[in-house]
Amino acid sequence: MGASRRPRGRCNGRMETWDAIRARRNVRAFAQDRAIAPADLDLNLEAAWRSPSSMNQQAWTFIAVTERDQLKELSEVWQYAEHVAGSAATIAFIAPASDDPETREVYQYDLGQATMSIMLAAADRGIGSCHAAVGDQARARELLHLPEDQRCEWLVSLGYPADRPLAPIAVPDRRPLGDVVRRGHW
Amino acid sequence: MGASRRPRGRCNGRMETWDAIRARRNVRAFAQDRAIAPADLDLNLEAAWRSPSSMNQQAWTFIAVTERDQLKELSEVWQYAEHVAGSAATIAFIAPASDDPETREVYQYDLGQATMSIMLAAADRGIGSCHAAVGDQARARELLHLPEDQRCEWLVSLGYPADRPLAPIAVPDRRPLGDVVRRGHW
Repeated sequence: MGASRRPRGRCNGRMETWDAIRARRNVRAFAQDRAIAPADLDLNLEAAWRSPSSMNQQAWTFIAVTERDQLKELSEVWQYAEHVAGSAATIAFIAPASDDPETREVYQYDLGQATMSIMLAAADRGIGSCHAAVGDQARARELLHLPEDQRCEWLVSLGYPADRPLAPIAVPDRRPLGDVVRRGHW
Repeated sequence: MGASRRPRGRCNGRMETWDAIRARRNVRAFAQDRAIAPADLDLNLEAAWRSPSSMNQQAWTFIAVTERDQLKELSEVWQYAEHVAGSAATIAFIAPASDDPETREVYQYDLGQATMSIMLAAADRGIGSCHAAVGDQARARELLHLPEDQRCEWLVSLGYPADRPLAPIAVPDRRPLGDVVRRGHW
């Protein structure tokens, strides 16, 4: 490929926003020989830090885990979190424990926004991602040294895809657009 | 500015992902003389449609509202939703009604992911956004013709900023990065 033929969808070596949005996909198998450069991991974390939250409350802490042994242990907090074990890094989403359903719902909404910020910042650099729930709170608390008043709500694993690079997906596996998107009313 | 001097942070007239992430901010006052081109609104809705969700359940419907009268009425469903009245478009986030707290929390997490997808797709085109909660469900249901088993969970207003164009923000109003982001453990 000649120097004048820039790969489609990239600009200065990174993706345009719309390409990142279309290229993001759940990646559960990561290339085992490719670490994430510390500067790139920092940008993913900065994306989370920048995320909006209800009333700008920022009721969250993001813990980046990169040590293989800790990743393996962390992958055991949920039956479907196996992808964490082989990730280059996993970010644990921590929020205050709360018994109030409404408070918990708003935390979840905010954590969802932060998740997407990370995933798109990652996709921009060709890094795949996948979220996992947390079943065993006691184990997560122990592994991450969490205070009793904090909970590990989600894990987001990161790494370069083992199968193929991220690239815009023309038609993702979704319900028909016309069912999901409506105009004016239901 | 010469033709060879492209505005910083833009590529082919759109933003690179990292610039969109840094340029997104809550916009509550929208330029009243600028509509959103239908193709741009469609991309925002497509971004929501593409969003990941837990188990790919896609338990959501996105209703785009663009008529001024309906926007004004919709702005009355919450005390802090006034920005909806002056928006160029507002997307109502609909999810199934559920009495199960865990189901509701996962819905909220998923809706947060879709929110950020829309907001970054919008920022990519210079479109500002702001989310609002919904207090008066009965009124929202009436305005959007929702079935009884659906709820309007959030509104995301969209429009070009009345004050100044979106541009990357060097230091957003956030808690110190070192408090929010940690390594290995709490």
